[in-house]
Amino acid sequence: MNITDLTDVLNRVREMKPLVHHITNYVSVNDCANVVLAAGASPVMADELDEIDEIVSISSALVINIGTLNKRTIESMIEAMKKANEKGIPAILDPVGAGASTIRTETAKKLVKENKFAVIKGNISEIKVVNDGQGFTRGVDADAGNALNNNIENMKVLAKNLAAKTGSIVVITGAVDVVSDGKRCCLIHNGHPMMSKITGTGCMCASLVGAFCGAEQDYFKATVAAILTMSLAGQLAFDRLPEPKQGSGSYRRFIIDEISCMNDEKLARHGRVSFENEI
Amino acid sequence: MNITDLTDVLNRVREMKPLVHHITNYVSVNDCANVVLAAGASPVMADELDEIDEIVSISSALVINIGTLNKRTIESMIEAMKKANEKGIPAILDPVGAGASTIRTETAKKLVKENKFAVIKGNISEIKVVNDGQGFTRGVDADAGNALNNNIENMKVLAKNLAAKTGSIVVITGAVDVVSDGKRCCLIHNGHPMMSKITGTGCMCASLVGAFCGAEQDYFKATVAAILTMSLAGQLAFDRLPEPKQGSGSYRRFIIDEISCMNDEKLARHGRVSFENEI
Amino acid sequence: MNITDLTDVLNRVREMKPLVHHITNYVSVNDCANVVLAAGASPVMADELDEIDEIVSISSALVINIGTLNKRTIESMIEAMKKANEKGIPAILDPVGAGASTIRTETAKKLVKENKFAVIKGNISEIKVVNDGQGFTRGVDADAGNALNNNIENMKVLAKNLAAKTGSIVVITGAVDVVSDGKRCCLIHNGHPMMSKITGTGCMCASLVGAFCGAEQDYFKATVAAILTMSLAGQLAFDRLPEPKQGSGSYRRFIIDEISCMNDEKLARHGRVSFENEI
Repeated sequence: MNITDLTDVLNRVREMKPLVHHITNYVSVNDCANVVLAAGASPVMADELDEIDEIVSISSALVINIGTLNKRTIESMIEAMKKANEKGIPAILDPVGAGASTIRTETAKKLVKENKFAVIKGNISEIKVVNDGQGFTRGVDADAGNALNNNIENMKVLAKNLAAKTGSIVVITGAVDVVSDGKRCCLIHNGHPMMSKITGTGCMCASLVGAFCGAEQDYFKATVAAILTMSLAGQLAFDRLPEPKQGSGSYRRFIIDEISCMNDEKLARHGRVSFENEI
Repeated sequence: MNITDLTDVLNRVREMKPLVHHITNYVSVNDCANVVLAAGASPVMADELDEIDEIVSISSALVINIGTLNKRTIESMIEAMKKANEKGIPAILDPVGAGASTIRTETAKKLVKENKFAVIKGNISEIKVVNDGQGFTRGVDADAGNALNNNIENMKVLAKNLAAKTGSIVVITGAVDVVSDGKRCCLIHNGHPMMSKITGTGCMCASLVGAFCGAEQDYFKATVAAILTMSLAGQLAFDRLPEPKQGSGSYRRFIIDEISCMNDEKLARHGRVSFENEI
Repeated sequence: MNITDLTDVLNRVREMKPLVHHITNYVSVNDCANVVLAAGASPVMADELDEIDEIVSISSALVINIGTLNKRTIESMIEAMKKANEKGIPAILDPVGAGASTIRTETAKKLVKENKFAVIKGNISEIKVVNDGQGFTRGVDADAGNALNNNIENMKVLAKNLAAKTGSIVVITGAVDVVSDGKRCCLIHNGHPMMSKITGTGCMCASLVGAFCGAEQDYFKATVAAILTMSLAGQLAFDRLPEPKQGSGSYRRFIIDEISCMNDEKLARHGRVSFENEI
């Protein structure tokens, strides 16, 4: 696989305009909808149990984000996953805050155990929790004290293990993003540390993965392309930021701008993606 | 009616600062609140059944948007409408996604059947569903395959029929927006296709209709003025967008800017509104 | 106390990165998360009763905002306050719309009666309601007819009384912001009237107070520093606004930019804070 394979996926999203069903949190939901539109897809947010089957059935992808879960929406998540698996619709899990509370940890683990996700995406703490139920998440941020952080080799092993165990593509986001399908591994070196100063960049990333998987059946390729698009948008948005390069209101706007202005040429020119066949 | 009658309504909103009660979705709610403020009115969002009667009673208009409805909020919508009708407070319905699920279709139809809305506003798919229970909505977007789309004559007939049947002003949004009170018909030729690349422009539009109906008892005039304000803001925002004119984060910001900067002179100069007494 | 004591608190927030748990409304929640990040702290939004105890326990501050309360979230608020008091974690109350409905008034009063808040922050109408159950709130805005408005001496008496009664720091926001601990009183003369044209500036202010109280145990000092930061950001954002200085979409973005760009030097140079030992 090379970068040309990836740039093609964005074009396909814009041609096919896949409908992406979200059951997500109320913090970043507006930005998630706007990045899905910026990528050329179409978002629909619906969490009422009575409409889940119908909405999943007309969608090309499902994104489940547990950021502000509650007992009512957990039921809807479970039903949506059952339906998505039945229909063969790719589903993305963003286990926001898994490890910060028992109900988040249990919900993430139950969803993964009983269903098959196309993609599971989280920070290092969240993925560790989904993998073995261990680990601690400081609210919705990765735990800085976690020994795995900043250790790419360990991240690759973790991503590969969880992917092999679940049959899902696994993404661990961080300074370098790691994507694995259990055999192959891909590192994305784009992005910018300021992305963590905006709420919901992780959620937006999962929504983009949903949009891309809705248009490309090779979910590994779709996921790498989506993560690259998000990370590169964060990097180019930082380049545009006026001095002193700290304005997070402007940065948020520029990230969405950069996603809507993303194209083949930019992905090919700026993308820093490395593939490894075995890890 | 001519354009001068319309420009006057915006001034009245700014003088009277009507309080606009919303029961709305959590995707675009922040933008809805901000456009209501930008127009000079005051938003209040409240969906707990136990406070509905009190909040409706102190408000000048009610906006019901079913975008992320659930069983709890449906009860609140029903109660709010009962109270609004009892008090003579103008109510706006935005049947977001009617046709995409049974519960959305049934809720929209039930609300319209049991109450009188001042205004019903939707895209062609949604209005068709409210009119005859037929039609399909692709998530929250109009179904592109719908034969009525892009056929202004059919849109006028549909708007007029639903308006005559319900006693409501009916708005069908699209490349050209159609407004009818069952007899008269008005077309608004402003706007820009990029408005569909931002989530919630339809919701913002309904919120503006609420703000305008809270300040002007001639709801046909108020509605046309509100739709014109929204469409023109979308058009002027696009004019301000830097090249390559694709940044949807910036576009969203400029739309709200343009609503807060809207005035008589701009509406009169740029407004492209045509009235027809009979269709 | 002088302005140097205050500027120090912002630095401490950036060093300590306190985790700030919010149970808040879905209107301004995204802006609240972004201002907390802009100040250097870390937000977590969680309202499911089953995770409240765990999330409060890992947090450095709790912000309760009743802006779109419902029966389910009220239970979570009550549990969170019990836990915060038990753990000695500072809690902030933003009684949004207290006085506009019985359930808002009763919830605010019950929370204050049964627990101890570090800080209670509201507009004049809301604080009056919390103080004596009297007063009327027009939606979520201060009632313009309220005789106390614009009367600083009366605001100081009200703030001092409620502070003395509850043991909380009390903030009354307005053209001039008043902060009292029951003995001392502080006036903040920064800010700009346009802040009321953006939804959620009051909510963002409460979130900043939470972030600052999570990093500074002298809650009076933390609160004054937070209110100054928010008010000065609103003022500097207005200075940056292009002519005709009415674009509320841009203004919102600039406020968040100014919080992320705030520093000692700006606070010291532009801060207009007056302390009075007795009132």
